[in-house]
Amino acid sequence: MTANGDNIKVKPHLLTVSLEPENQETPVHFINEAITPEDLFFKRNHFSYPTASQIPQSIRIDGFVRRNVDLSLQTLRSLPAKSLVVPLECAGNRRALFDPGVYGVRWQRGAMSQAEWKGVSLIHLLRLAGVKEGAKEVVFEGADSGEYKGKRRAYRRSLPLDKALHPDTIVAYDMNRRPIPLKHGYPFRLIVPGWYAMASVKWLQKITVIPDTFEGPFQTDDYVYYPHPESDDGKLPVTFMKVNSLIQYPIDYSVLEKGVHVIKGWAWTGEGTVNRVEVSLDGARTWKSARIRQDASQPYSVAMWTYQWHAVQEGEYTIHCRATNSIGQSQPVQPKWNRLGYGYNGIACVRVKVG
Amino acid sequence: MTANGDNIKVKPHLLTVSLEPENQETPVHFINEAITPEDLFFKRNHFSYPTASQIPQSIRIDGFVRRNVDLSLQTLRSLPAKSLVVPLECAGNRRALFDPGVYGVRWQRGAMSQAEWKGVSLIHLLRLAGVKEGAKEVVFEGADSGEYKGKRRAYRRSLPLDKALHPDTIVAYDMNRRPIPLKHGYPFRLIVPGWYAMASVKWLQKITVIPDTFEGPFQTDDYVYYPHPESDDGKLPVTFMKVNSLIQYPIDYSVLEKGVHVIKGWAWTGEGTVNRVEVSLDGARTWKSARIRQDASQPYSVAMWTYQWHAVQEGEYTIHCRATNSIGQSQPVQPKWNRLGYGYNGIACVRVKVG
Repeated sequence: MTANGDNIKVKPHLLTVSLEPENQETPVHFINEAITPEDLFFKRNHFSYPTASQIPQSIRIDGFVRRNVDLSLQTLRSLPAKSLVVPLECAGNRRALFDPGVYGVRWQRGAMSQAEWKGVSLIHLLRLAGVKEGAKEVVFEGADSGEYKGKRRAYRRSLPLDKALHPDTIVAYDMNRRPIPLKHGYPFRLIVPGWYAMASVKWLQKITVIPDTFEGPFQTDDYVYYPHPESDDGKLPVTFMKVNSLIQYPIDYSVLEKGVHVIKGWAWTGEGTVNRVEVSLDGARTWKSARIRQDASQPYSVAMWTYQWHAVQEGEYTIHCRATNSIGQSQPVQPKWNRLGYGYNGIACVRVKVG
Repeated sequence: MTANGDNIKVKPHLLTVSLEPENQETPVHFINEAITPEDLFFKRNHFSYPTASQIPQSIRIDGFVRRNVDLSLQTLRSLPAKSLVVPLECAGNRRALFDPGVYGVRWQRGAMSQAEWKGVSLIHLLRLAGVKEGAKEVVFEGADSGEYKGKRRAYRRSLPLDKALHPDTIVAYDMNRRPIPLKHGYPFRLIVPGWYAMASVKWLQKITVIPDTFEGPFQTDDYVYYPHPESDDGKLPVTFMKVNSLIQYPIDYSVLEKGVHVIKGWAWTGEGTVNRVEVSLDGARTWKSARIRQDASQPYSVAMWTYQWHAVQEGEYTIHCRATNSIGQSQPVQPKWNRLGYGYNGIACVRVKVG
């Protein structure tokens, strides 16, 4: 089936998870492009949006630096730029799939999207300020703030110095070749390729270099893997995205006609690159390689994979998909349960009936 | 939290289930009004939308009648009208909640919405044509058609004569006081209060009175309860909506602050009226009555219920809700499983953590 009514537009929408603050998923099963259109890019907020008067006019760099610097959008645009295609995935993506269930914003599979981000390497900006010997971390503050755990706070996160100085950690001002939309961090957003999206601070207004370890609720309480239901033993900060994949077609529990079906989806990883995607049609007993399409010049970008399936036999099928990255990590059958429900990367699975 | 950025609009969206044909859910957890706004009304289609040239100019009444009649929109609007607030619920609403899983369009909880429908009682129109003695059913044909089970077909459904002649079975032309939008059946839609929405045929173009029993795939294959996984034993047609309810607030697996929370939701029924909604906060051991708000002049309309909860103790809670109608039917703990996944009306349930 293809043709719809002559002039009747049929389009997917964001999937609403909460409205105050706004949290909306990308309809990942219905995005055919590598780049997520702006209006379908997922929205993840901890607070209400900054008001017009709160939107930063410039970025201040201060702290453990030789000189404080204020950078306007105009200045930023005049500096050497770089464009990176980067998927952002919320650390809580797929939280609703954990078993036993965990509390928190109930993301299904769509707390991720991909855009082309253009901006200036942070290392370049830090050089303008002159990082002092002994610096340890860099703290990023957004213009969004609100009541959180009993106090009024801004959204703040830090990066270790080596990640902050990586040339692909950028302060972006364009998203998909246009100014970043207000809801996605206008005018400045930190982009930290490879890390879960909590690191990519929106409405960036302050960058503070510090000689010690940053503490704040979004750093030390939230965005931490707690492997035990009750105790905090073995806790670990959330950093890199785990290797992961998604089946876009077919949809779970759909009924298909006999014939050739192109199973398709995405795969991505925060460390290394995706170098294998495998599909199983017999309940994860045997695996076959899918074809991967990826822009080699954009190593962070989502790998789009396809597998041609000749569905000759009527019956019920379970389709699994698992991705493996270049440092040998594969998706597990059972993802690591943790109390706040971060980093779900269990093998993707859909059930279909043929005939 | 209330205030969003000065001029930043935050709104819920339809939840996309499939695009060809278009199937989209209402974000039922985020609708505060009794009437669903037009752009958030759920969409359920078996085929592509009719093209502009296929949109009916009039309705033909024929078959087992004394005279064939053609009714234009203008004629219809000149006849005595009635306005009814009626929720429409897809028979497959909540299909995704059945365990074991069933195949078909994977509706969560939002394949239902409520509108005010205005139109003419069908009995009035049938009188114009003169139903012959011995008539048994009335068949309704929509202008939507396509390939289905190996043949090109229009969407057709029938009603037994007594239901067709019920004064509240109407041919509607207005939805929420404006012409029915194209995607919801413009210019004419049959509205069958109390029945699942497959009976409320969109783009209605033909009404045929027959002296026997109508057969067609949407009548005898689909929209049938098959209680057994393999055999067709004990099959029953889908007709009235079962008594049902929904918890809108709180959201499943959310974290709440200690204090007073107004648990709220909807309840509805296809037979009788909702006369009790109960809430349990101790895992369905004890139940307390919720307060019901319903427009007494609109007996089909959704009952909006609230229950004030003093959450004084930190901890995890399971909130259940069950509705009972005036003929003594209550929602079951375990809804009746059936092969195609219709009529899910299990007790609603959300888990929350306080503190």
